[in-house]
Amino acid sequence: MEVRTSWIERATSGRDDVLDITDEVARAVAASGLRAGSAIVFVPGSTGAVTTIECEPGVVQDLRDALERAVPRAIPYAHDAAWGDGNGYSHVRAAWIGPSLAVPFEDGKLLLGTWQQIVFCDHDNRPRRRRLIVQVMGVRG
Amino acid sequence: MEVRTSWIERATSGRDDVLDITDEVARAVAASGLRAGSAIVFVPGSTGAVTTIECEPGVVQDLRDALERAVPRAIPYAHDAAWGDGNGYSHVRAAWIGPSLAVPFEDGKLLLGTWQQIVFCDHDNRPRRRRLIVQVMGVRG
Amino acid sequence: MEVRTSWIERATSGRDDVLDITDEVARAVAASGLRAGSAIVFVPGSTGAVTTIECEPGVVQDLRDALERAVPRAIPYAHDAAWGDGNGYSHVRAAWIGPSLAVPFEDGKLLLGTWQQIVFCDHDNRPRRRRLIVQVMGVRG
Repeated sequence: MEVRTSWIERATSGRDDVLDITDEVARAVAASGLRAGSAIVFVPGSTGAVTTIECEPGVVQDLRDALERAVPRAIPYAHDAAWGDGNGYSHVRAAWIGPSLAVPFEDGKLLLGTWQQIVFCDHDNRPRRRRLIVQVMGVRG
Repeated sequence: MEVRTSWIERATSGRDDVLDITDEVARAVAASGLRAGSAIVFVPGSTGAVTTIECEPGVVQDLRDALERAVPRAIPYAHDAAWGDGNGYSHVRAAWIGPSLAVPFEDGKLLLGTWQQIVFCDHDNRPRRRRLIVQVMGVRG
Repeated sequence: MEVRTSWIERATSGRDDVLDITDEVARAVAASGLRAGSAIVFVPGSTGAVTTIECEPGVVQDLRDALERAVPRAIPYAHDAAWGDGNGYSHVRAAWIGPSLAVPFEDGKLLLGTWQQIVFCDHDNRPRRRRLIVQVMGVRG
């Protein structure tokens, strides 16, 4: 059993960006040289999240619209009243979707569905340079 | 440390089916012969999700009702406008609940609560034959 | 590769308590003596959940308010009609946020963001004594 920790770096636009990071995670698995195990993707921050979707523009828009209905941007948030960050909604959306994901692999390949991509959701209200963690755990033989 | 990857196969009804898969996951852990570790359950598809609930008909109905309120089936979705699948709501619900779950085990037994079951939520809008992944990672000794 | 399973015990107030358990998880990682891997945090119960937030009172209130809007406490639930528990909303909220989380560590330290804490959300409607699982998986060398 081995553990390989690496980082993905991506720039975001600050408007509920949804970024397809499947290729980066697949490359981390391939680079590990491991045959079977899981890739743990983790967002080290409280305004970003990770999940899987069919990453086509329609679904991305639908996900944003649903989050806007459930956790609207322009209502009062106690976080904003206390700290003036203006991103209270970002914190709630990120906690809701969640910061971690485990994706199994076999024969060095992620076991994703045909129309399923791993996405990083940056819910923050400004463009950011983001670093995500990909930790590959598994066996070589 | 060892890794054992297996598959669960289940038929779904296409109406926000919530299926108790606890027994299948428990059997995968028992079959692995491992003493301690975690079972990673993963849905390889973008319209299904996995979580835990007290899987009695009331809670299942309550979960469906809450998803219908937050992500209604019969409003316009950009995904449907572009692709005509009619399952835009399915994609959003699945991304929201999430496709992966890690459940620890000790002495070959899942460490679940007394009233807690592992469930597969098929949010798609038609009956499907579904395959889920159970990856057991842990130690023998 | 090694696996170390331990328990966190905390008392909750029964009013959508959000408890910062970062220190307990960090201590479990340090106590394991492992260098790199992931800590899996799991709630063995169907009315609690685990995620990460910036655990300051404003965000905690915002998370509670968003859950109350999406999954209100005082509407009818089928679970309550059948069992009279009065915590139908608790089950839905917990399934929504989810019971498990994987947080990577390196050099014996959790790879969390600066303003990111691991929190246990007890959505139940009464004070409880709760036990959570922290399972540390990783390598020593």
